[in-house]
Amino acid sequence: MTDRALIHRLCVIGVGLIGGSLARALRHAGAVDQVVGCGRNADTLQRAEALGVVDHYTTDPAHAVTGADMVVVCVPLGAMRGVFEQIRGHLAPDAVLTDGGSAKASVIEDARAAFGDLPAGFVPGHPIAGTEKSGVEASFSRLYNHRRVILTPVAESAEWAVDRTRRMWEAAGARVTSMSAEHHDDVLAATSHLPHALAFGLVDTLSRWEGEQEIFEYAAGGFRDFTRIASSDPVMWRDICLSNREALARALRRYTEDLQRLTELVERGDGAALEDIFQHAKARRDRFVALLEDKH
Amino acid sequence: MTDRALIHRLCVIGVGLIGGSLARALRHAGAVDQVVGCGRNADTLQRAEALGVVDHYTTDPAHAVTGADMVVVCVPLGAMRGVFEQIRGHLAPDAVLTDGGSAKASVIEDARAAFGDLPAGFVPGHPIAGTEKSGVEASFSRLYNHRRVILTPVAESAEWAVDRTRRMWEAAGARVTSMSAEHHDDVLAATSHLPHALAFGLVDTLSRWEGEQEIFEYAAGGFRDFTRIASSDPVMWRDICLSNREALARALRRYTEDLQRLTELVERGDGAALEDIFQHAKARRDRFVALLEDKH
Ligand SMILES: NC(=O)c1ccc[n+]([C@@H]2O[C@H](COP(=O)([O-])OP(=O)(O)OC[C@H]3O[C@@H](n4cnc5c(N)ncnc54)[C@H](OP(=O)(O)O)[C@@H]3O)[C@@H](O)[C@H]2O)c1
Ligand SMILES: NC(=O)c1ccc[n+]([C@@H]2O[C@H](COP(=O)([O-])OP(=O)(O)OC[C@H]3O[C@@H](n4cnc5c(N)ncnc54)[C@H](OP(=O)(O)O)[C@@H]3O)[C@@H](O)[C@H]2O)c1
Repeated sequence: MTDRALIHRLCVIGVGLIGGSLARALRHAGAVDQVVGCGRNADTLQRAEALGVVDHYTTDPAHAVTGADMVVVCVPLGAMRGVFEQIRGHLAPDAVLTDGGSAKASVIEDARAAFGDLPAGFVPGHPIAGTEKSGVEASFSRLYNHRRVILTPVAESAEWAVDRTRRMWEAAGARVTSMSAEHHDDVLAATSHLPHALAFGLVDTLSRWEGEQEIFEYAAGGFRDFTRIASSDPVMWRDICLSNREALARALRRYTEDLQRLTELVERGDGAALEDIFQHAKARRDRFVALLEDKH
Repeated sequence: MTDRALIHRLCVIGVGLIGGSLARALRHAGAVDQVVGCGRNADTLQRAEALGVVDHYTTDPAHAVTGADMVVVCVPLGAMRGVFEQIRGHLAPDAVLTDGGSAKASVIEDARAAFGDLPAGFVPGHPIAGTEKSGVEASFSRLYNHRRVILTPVAESAEWAVDRTRRMWEAAGARVTSMSAEHHDDVLAATSHLPHALAFGLVDTLSRWEGEQEIFEYAAGGFRDFTRIASSDPVMWRDICLSNREALARALRRYTEDLQRLTELVERGDGAALEDIFQHAKARRDRFVALLEDKH
């Protein structure tokens, strides 16, 4: 290598789908010299090493962050605070500390609780990319290609830290934008947390229907796509629901009200109003897909 | 051809995704000698002819069914009754009359209203296969491969007619089962009509959210899959909602109640109960997908 890599020592805490894919992408881009993995489970970490995702690993977060110039925490939201407490006092002063958690206000709250004064290197983030699979085996280097990453810097976040976090995600192929944590949590409640709650809820409802066996037997491709996100990790989603509960509950209530109106239209047999809604939704969704495909 | 084909003259009324795919599949299987297409629009029918989906076409249903031994009506549910009225008195006595409508009690009601006494050849049916696309251009011969078709014969349906309908769908690659129209409508309300209503409803709700532009900008692959069925044809889905309104409204009410409970769990922050629901849903959905993949 002629140039110095963007990151000398990357520490990934939580080497699963999100953390593992980031490590792979940065390696692939030649943007990192060395990757240290950390988690609770030495077996998983060994698999990550065997897969070439990390160079070294340790189950001790304090040890893992020592000497790292970039620390990315990719554990379930419920484990963030514990990790922050364990690494407190071990971060290099010029290290960036960022994360991949799907809700942001709660991560900031957890960091404040753990660190007291937030380190200047702290830059919360969230890659808008994922699949319904979990674990390092499911990770792949192209996960972030052309995807969005949202950073939600706090008042304490230093410019150099925001800048390095942005460049890291760009090296991984992503497009980076910034907004407040509260706004992030509202937007994601709508586009991600609400649909996941609806899909989990639908499969759960149907599975308790009389004759459920038969019901699933006659479900087809449309149902498979609609419920794909209900195959996501239950612990991760429990944590997201808890971490973003206010915004998610608001979104759920709003959707439920609209659904009640839709139900009334069905009951009344109001074909014109139903067609309007469907037409409008189809047009909006087709436009969304065109946009998404444009980006690739 | 050494054997006589299963169907001599197939008449498809409504040469769109469903009717067009059936014609293609039967041709591909060598199960039909001749295909006559019928619809309102000569331009569309000409395209169907140019694509080799039909051999001849006419916009007159009475003319179309004349001399056909198999008549399959694949128009939107709201157009079924009009088509039945137009073909009344023109069917050969030994012709099978079947359809591909997504709700079954309403088709039977429409046939009774149009025919008075139902012909012995009448066998309502529904292929559990489709995509969010419409029209003959979207049709393809493998659409029914390994898919289910549900027949809902009435008291008047003759055994020979049920048998020929079954063999037709089997020749198209499908697995055929029978049940009552009422039961069909309940099962499909759960696995198909409810999810479609939820997906249309979600996109509509979000599109009326403040900042909707931004919301869709941050939606990703999970959202695309979840809302795929909201790109389906609005007229077809208006008709399905109207035709199966009682079963669908019941399903919607039931789902809404469960959603309210889920919302309360989120608001209370009941992580254990949420995890239970998500775990249970994921297990059920994973089992469903394994089953679906097994069939292929
Ligand atoms: N999946 C998605 O679609 C997606 C998208 C965007 C953001 N996110 C966010 O990314 C984060 C990780 O998600 P993921 O999908 O990568 O999950 P994952 O594949 O299950 O990986 C999570 C990793 O965290 C470790 N871990 C779990 N609990 C821990 C704990 N209590 N303490 C320390 N380490 C722990 C696990 O390893 P051990 O078991 O060895 O500890 C595992 O390697 C979550 O915060 C999630 O909200 C996910
Ligand atoms: N799409 C699915 O996923 C799916 C799955 C299973 C069952 N079905 C059922 O299959 C039927 C057809 O659906 P499709 O997806 O094939 O729709 P499609 O692709 O839009 O085709 C419908 C066809 O019906 C004709 N048509 C429309 N209105 C008509 C009318 N008033 N009178 C006579 N012909 C008319 C149209 O041609 P002209 O415009 O030229 O008249 C068109 O060729 C529906 O009853 C639907 O419930 C659909």
